[in-house]
Amino acid sequence: MILPDIQNTKPNVEIKLNRVGIKNYKLPISVLEKTQNIQHTIANVNCYVNLAADIKGISMSRLPIGLNKFSDRPLSGEIIEDIAEYIRLKSDAENTEITYKFPYFIKKNAPVSKEPGYFHVNVAFNGVKSKDDYMFRFWVETICSSSCPCSKEISQYGAHSQRSLIKIFCTPNNEQWVWIEDLIKIAQESASCEIFSVLKRPDEKKVTETTYENPMFVEDITRSCFEKLTNLNLKTFKIEVTNEESIHLHDAFSSIWV
Amino acid sequence: MILPDIQNTKPNVEIKLNRVGIKNYKLPISVLEKTQNIQHTIANVNCYVNLAADIKGISMSRLPIGLNKFSDRPLSGEIIEDIAEYIRLKSDAENTEITYKFPYFIKKNAPVSKEPGYFHVNVAFNGVKSKDDYMFRFWVETICSSSCPCSKEISQYGAHSQRSLIKIFCTPNNEQWVWIEDLIKIAQESASCEIFSVLKRPDEKKVTETTYENPMFVEDITRSCFEKLTNLNLKTFKIEVTNEESIHLHDAFSSIWV
Amino acid sequence: MILPDIQNTKPNVEIKLNRVGIKNYKLPISVLEKTQNIQHTIANVNCYVNLAADIKGISMSRLPIGLNKFSDRPLSGEIIEDIAEYIRLKSDAENTEITYKFPYFIKKNAPVSKEPGYFHVNVAFNGVKSKDDYMFRFWVETICSSSCPCSKEISQYGAHSQRSLIKIFCTPNNEQWVWIEDLIKIAQESASCEIFSVLKRPDEKKVTETTYENPMFVEDITRSCFEKLTNLNLKTFKIEVTNEESIHLHDAFSSIWV
Amino acid sequence: MILPDIQNTKPNVEIKLNRVGIKNYKLPISVLEKTQNIQHTIANVNCYVNLAADIKGISMSRLPIGLNKFSDRPLSGEIIEDIAEYIRLKSDAENTEITYKFPYFIKKNAPVSKEPGYFHVNVAFNGVKSKDDYMFRFWVETICSSSCPCSKEISQYGAHSQRSLIKIFCTPNNEQWVWIEDLIKIAQESASCEIFSVLKRPDEKKVTETTYENPMFVEDITRSCFEKLTNLNLKTFKIEVTNEESIHLHDAFSSIWV
Repeated sequence: MILPDIQNTKPNVEIKLNRVGIKNYKLPISVLEKTQNIQHTIANVNCYVNLAADIKGISMSRLPIGLNKFSDRPLSGEIIEDIAEYIRLKSDAENTEITYKFPYFIKKNAPVSKEPGYFHVNVAFNGVKSKDDYMFRFWVETICSSSCPCSKEISQYGAHSQRSLIKIFCTPNNEQWVWIEDLIKIAQESASCEIFSVLKRPDEKKVTETTYENPMFVEDITRSCFEKLTNLNLKTFKIEVTNEESIHLHDAFSSIWV
Repeated sequence: MILPDIQNTKPNVEIKLNRVGIKNYKLPISVLEKTQNIQHTIANVNCYVNLAADIKGISMSRLPIGLNKFSDRPLSGEIIEDIAEYIRLKSDAENTEITYKFPYFIKKNAPVSKEPGYFHVNVAFNGVKSKDDYMFRFWVETICSSSCPCSKEISQYGAHSQRSLIKIFCTPNNEQWVWIEDLIKIAQESASCEIFSVLKRPDEKKVTETTYENPMFVEDITRSCFEKLTNLNLKTFKIEVTNEESIHLHDAFSSIWV
Repeated sequence: MILPDIQNTKPNVEIKLNRVGIKNYKLPISVLEKTQNIQHTIANVNCYVNLAADIKGISMSRLPIGLNKFSDRPLSGEIIEDIAEYIRLKSDAENTEITYKFPYFIKKNAPVSKEPGYFHVNVAFNGVKSKDDYMFRFWVETICSSSCPCSKEISQYGAHSQRSLIKIFCTPNNEQWVWIEDLIKIAQESASCEIFSVLKRPDEKKVTETTYENPMFVEDITRSCFEKLTNLNLKTFKIEVTNEESIHLHDAFSSIWV
Repeated sequence: MILPDIQNTKPNVEIKLNRVGIKNYKLPISVLEKTQNIQHTIANVNCYVNLAADIKGISMSRLPIGLNKFSDRPLSGEIIEDIAEYIRLKSDAENTEITYKFPYFIKKNAPVSKEPGYFHVNVAFNGVKSKDDYMFRFWVETICSSSCPCSKEISQYGAHSQRSLIKIFCTPNNEQWVWIEDLIKIAQESASCEIFSVLKRPDEKKVTETTYENPMFVEDITRSCFEKLTNLNLKTFKIEVTNEESIHLHDAFSSIWV
C-alpha cells in the first residue's frame, strides 16, 4: 500500500521556516571526558532543520532516526557535525541545528579528608551546520559558594553566604578544543569557594573559612570569571551568575558578554 | 438535537474510583486576610469527586462550572465546603476533594530602615466533603535564613548560611480558625532569621548578625517549629524543612509529623 | 552609625558589566485590559542595570524599592518606561532592562452553550531604557488544539490531535499599540481550533469537528500565524509553535523570525 | 586537631524526628533490566534516617558516603536494603528511608516498520529499613495515547486525542519480584494505544486507527489498568491517570488505590 505524502505538497502560505523539528527528545548518550574516559549520561535533544517555502512539512521521523543512528558514539563537537550533516542531507535542508543538554559528573575529593564524591554540572552542546559552514557552541552551568563583601564589612561577625550558579556560554575556536572540565575549573576558581558533595568536619572548616576569607559580590564573580576566560582562545563568550541570596526571596544576577 | 450521554453508560470494568476530576485548572481568586482585607491572587485548582462502580464517566464540565460559580467569593475553609458540597450534589457523588494552591503576599517592613516590601509564601487549601463530614487542611511554605552551628563552632570565623524552606501542613480544629499569617509567623520565628524583600545596609547588618548569633541545624528549625505548633490548637500537623546548603549541591532535610 | 559602602569601591577587575540586578522578584500587579478594565495578577520580575567598569557593585535595594514604588499603577509599556527611567537615574546607570512575566486571564464563552469560563495565557513585558532610547517588546504564549493532516489523510478514520503551544514575540511600533488580546486572537485563529475552559456536549461536538476539519501541521500553524502578524504594524516578531504530540513522547516544533 | 562535635550534643527541644537527611543528591547509577542487562542512568536520591530525641543533629556526611559506596552495584530492591541497613548502622538510627528517582529506557520498535527507537519512563524505587523489617515500594510513570469516547460518539467525524500519563505505585510481595518492564506493559495495554519514539507513515496510520478504535475516558484507563494489576501478586497499589486534554488548558484526572 502506498500512502499519500501530505508533507510533500504545497503549503497555503509559501514562506520559508527557520526551524522545524523535534524537541525534548530523550536519549541515553555517552560523552568523552578530558581524561579520555567515556561517561554515560542522558540527553534532552532538540533537532531542527529549515524548511523551503514551497514544502508543507518535513519528514519528522528522519530526525529521531538520525539521532539514534549515532547514539553509540561518544558525543563531541565533531560528532554533532556528522549527525547534523547526515540529517541535513536526509532532510534536503539548507541547515540543521542540534542541541544536546545533559548532566555531566566529575569525581572530586573533599579538600582535607580527600573523601571521594560525585559532582554534577549541567551542560549543553549546540551545533549549526550548513553546506559550507559549521558552528559549535556550548555552555556549562555549575554551582559554587559565595559570601557577601558588604555583609562582612558592615557586620560585627558573620557574612551571609549562598549558592552561586555560574553559567558560561562559549564558542570555541576551531583550532583549539575547550573541555567541559576547563570551564568547570574556571567557574569554581571565580567564586568565594568551590563546593563538594561530601564534606567531613575538617573539610567543612576549610570551606567555611575559605568562603569567609574571599567575599565576592555577584559582580565580582562575573568579572573574575571574565578575566580567566579571556585567557582561553574563544571566539565569543557570555557569563551569567545568579546568587540565590540567603537573605532574600529573590536572586541577585550579573551578566557580561563579548 | 439530543446528543448521546456516553458517560452515563456501564463501564467494562465495574469498580468504584476514588478520585475523578480536573487538575491544574487556573483561576483568579481572592483570599480573606487576617486583617479582614481581601487579597487578589491566582490559584491552581484540583477538583475531584468519587465515581460509582456502574457509571462509565463523570460529567467533567460540572467541575469548572461549580468552581467558577463561587470564584468571586473570598476563599476560606468555609467557602471550600460550600463549593465542595455544591459539586458533590451536582455530580451525584459521595465525596468531593478540592485543593487550591496559590501564592500569598504579606507586606513586611525591613527590620531597621522600615522600608516596606512584599513577601510571598506558597499556600494550599484542601477540603474533603462527604454528606455528613467535612475535613479542611492547609499548608504554608515560607523561606527563612539559617546558619550552621557546626560550621560556626569549628571555624575560626564565619559560618555557612542559606535559604531554609519551611513547609507546615496542618489540620485545624473546627472550633478555632488558624490564619495563614499565624503559620508564617511561627515559621519565621523558628529559623536563624526571617528574610525580607528589601534590605538597606543597616537592615543587612541586622540580618547578618542575627543569623550568625542564632545558628540552627535543619533539625533545630524543625524542633523549634514543632514546639510552637503544639501551642496552637491543631488536630494534626507535619513540618518539613529543607536547607538549600550553600556548601553542597544537595539539600539538607528534616521532617516530623504528629 | 555610618556604615562603609563597599559597593562604591574599585573592583579588582575593571570591566563594564552588561547586566546587574535582581531576578525572580515576585510582586502583585495590575494590568490594563483592552476593554480598559484593570486585571489583578502576579508578576515574576527581573530588573537589571549596567555597571561602570570602576564600580565594584550596584546598590541592589534600589531596584525592589523602585519596582514597589510603581506597583499600584496598571502595567503597560509606558509605565515600564517610567519605572526603568526612575531606576536608571537612581542607579546612575546608562541603561535599565526590566521584564515582567505574568499569567493573564480572559473571559471566554463556550462556542455553542455560551457557558462562561476563564482562559489564561502567559505574558511577558520587556523594556530597555537608556538616556535617549526606549525599546519595548512583549510575548504571549497561548494554547490551541491541532489535528495532524498526515494522520488524517493516511488513516481510514480519526486523526491524532494535541495541544499546540503558540508563542508570539513582538516589538510593536511606537506609533501603534498592540494589545495582549490582539495576539491571543491571532494565535487562536492560526491553529485547528481554539480551546476553552468549559465545554458542554454540544461544545465538545463543535470543537472536535472543527479540529478534524482543519488539520494543521506545526509548520502550517506557524505560517498561518506569520501571515496574520504581517498585517499588524510590528517592527519585528518571532513565532514558536510546539505541538505536544499525542503519538510521541517528544514534541514537534516550528519557528520563524523576521 | 580535634574539632568539636556539635551534632552530638543535646538539642534545646528534645523530641524525636521522623526523617533527617539529604535531598536531591544526584548520582550516576546502573539498574538491572528484566533481560538481565545493565542499564546506565542518573538518579536523584533522597536518603533519611530518624533521629533520637536527645541528639542535636545527624552526621550528614555519612549519607552520601554510604550511597557512593554502593553506587557501582546495579540498583534493585535488595541492594537498597543493603544500602539502607549500612547507613542505619553507621547512623545509629532506628530506621532509614531511601528513594531513587531515575529515567529508565527501553528499546521499542515501531509497530509496522519495526524501526527501532528509545522509549523512556520515570521510575522511583523506595525502601524503608528498620532493624527487623524492610518494605520496598516503587512507581513507574509512562505515557500512552488516548481518544475520547464522548467526543467520538457525539461528533460526525474525529475524536479528540491526547497524551495520557499513567503512574502506577506498587508494593510487591516479598516472594515475587515485579519488573519495571511488567508495569510499563500493563500501562501501555490499558490506554487507547501505546506510543513510540519513531513512527514512519505506515506506523502513524496504525497508531491513529488503533487510538480511534479504542476510545477511553481517563476513568476507563484507570479501571482497565486496575483489572490487570489485580492479576499481579501485589500487596498494595495505586493508579493515577492524567489526560493532557487537547481541548482544554487543564487536565482530566482519575485515581484508585487499594
